[in-house]
Amino acid sequence: MRIRLEVEYDGTDYAGWQRQKEEMTVQQRLEEALGSLLQQPIVIHGAGRTDAGVHAMRMTCHFDCQTRIPPDRIAYAVNYALPSDIRVCASEQVADDFHARFDAAGKWYRYRILHRQQAAAIHRRICAHVPGKLDVDAMARALPYLEGTHDFAAFAASGSHVKSTVRTIYAARLHRAEDMIWIDVVGSGFLYNMVRIIAGTAIDVGKGKQTETVFSDMIATGSRLSGGMTAPARGLTLMRVFYPPMPDIAQIETMINAGEML
Amino acid sequence: MRIRLEVEYDGTDYAGWQRQKEEMTVQQRLEEALGSLLQQPIVIHGAGRTDAGVHAMRMTCHFDCQTRIPPDRIAYAVNYALPSDIRVCASEQVADDFHARFDAAGKWYRYRILHRQQAAAIHRRICAHVPGKLDVDAMARALPYLEGTHDFAAFAASGSHVKSTVRTIYAARLHRAEDMIWIDVVGSGFLYNMVRIIAGTAIDVGKGKQTETVFSDMIATGSRLSGGMTAPARGLTLMRVFYPPMPDIAQIETMINAGEML
Repeated sequence: MRIRLEVEYDGTDYAGWQRQKEEMTVQQRLEEALGSLLQQPIVIHGAGRTDAGVHAMRMTCHFDCQTRIPPDRIAYAVNYALPSDIRVCASEQVADDFHARFDAAGKWYRYRILHRQQAAAIHRRICAHVPGKLDVDAMARALPYLEGTHDFAAFAASGSHVKSTVRTIYAARLHRAEDMIWIDVVGSGFLYNMVRIIAGTAIDVGKGKQTETVFSDMIATGSRLSGGMTAPARGLTLMRVFYPPMPDIAQIETMINAGEML
Repeated sequence: MRIRLEVEYDGTDYAGWQRQKEEMTVQQRLEEALGSLLQQPIVIHGAGRTDAGVHAMRMTCHFDCQTRIPPDRIAYAVNYALPSDIRVCASEQVADDFHARFDAAGKWYRYRILHRQQAAAIHRRICAHVPGKLDVDAMARALPYLEGTHDFAAFAASGSHVKSTVRTIYAARLHRAEDMIWIDVVGSGFLYNMVRIIAGTAIDVGKGKQTETVFSDMIATGSRLSGGMTAPARGLTLMRVFYPPMPDIAQIETMINAGEML
């Protein structure tokens, strides 16, 4: 049968999601723990990849297995075989043709920035650190220019190979509280490094190095212009993967706002 | 001259704030880093103690030294000599009779609970984990009974020796978002383990083991009753130490609400 998992992880100590030859990844840890629990080789298919140092509140993935363990108990049982920085939050049986990656209708990413002179201590694993002056209001005004269906070719790291660079961004919003800044981006899909390029460019807007219309300009020209940096991996968290029906914009806004404490 | 510091720390890997003979503490790390920077023995006086595993967003402390480093630059310089789980966020010269502990007018603590079947991965260092059924609305209704000036003798861990157990609680409130629960308590001062006893008792209310008026009953009887547990250290964070003038209740509420992302 086919099982879908929802997985939370602190990506700090992993070389990303996807299995690699030399370095430890979240996928490998999960495959080993599930293989040990289910006593059979397990191959996991994730909804996407996350880079080294990137976190997930709810990565989804699927795998096939034969077992008499009730599907919803797999989450409970496998956590005993996982390190504390990876938790399987839910497990359920899905249709045999479900595919975590191909069926995904959208994703929600959050990029966290601590804006103050000194780096974070408590949240040091999950925040980027930006000292110095930052016009956060300008950042907040710039982000909604991303919303809509556009060719995001200018937002892909070089070396990525995809058929189409057209994506739909449903919401790109900024929240702040004291010195913490969150950029939430919900879209149909994302190009390689796209959210980190968005975050890095938004930071450049805040520093006055880019104008508030920089995202429109990047969409229009297809060029990354004078290099919005790729913001550090540690600030990025995959919050949710959506499957049809995709929530509407009102639901997305409610979800982002309710997610302020996550 | 006398210097006041504001210090953030992740207490996970420390035996608490106060210097001890055998185990590493936050105070010792700070005294060593400041001693190295200022080239003189430094003795720090904190606004209070935090137990092993308890965190702080803004512990305050003071020390005396002779230096030509501008006071506001000490924060910047000392961080180079500190591990990444301790950050000095601010430093300033204060009056020679300022005392971080004796002058404190109040403190704000936050207790974080993750309420779901599986433990936290990303926030595992700063949350307590409570699985199973929990009536969170009942917890929210119970907490305000703490507010006011009362004898909190029932809320002190045994072994604490203080002249008076009368304290004023300005606000005791619960926030929730999805599976995250925060208990914020602002008071004139706190007895030993008081916030962890409040959190543990609130959890018992949520589990139906205590009534919603349990805090009134504990205040009235001076007895800890049928043992609200002391909730785990990892969920507790000292958010702020207040010096006169103490913020009024409206300011406190604004601060707690604005602090949802912290």
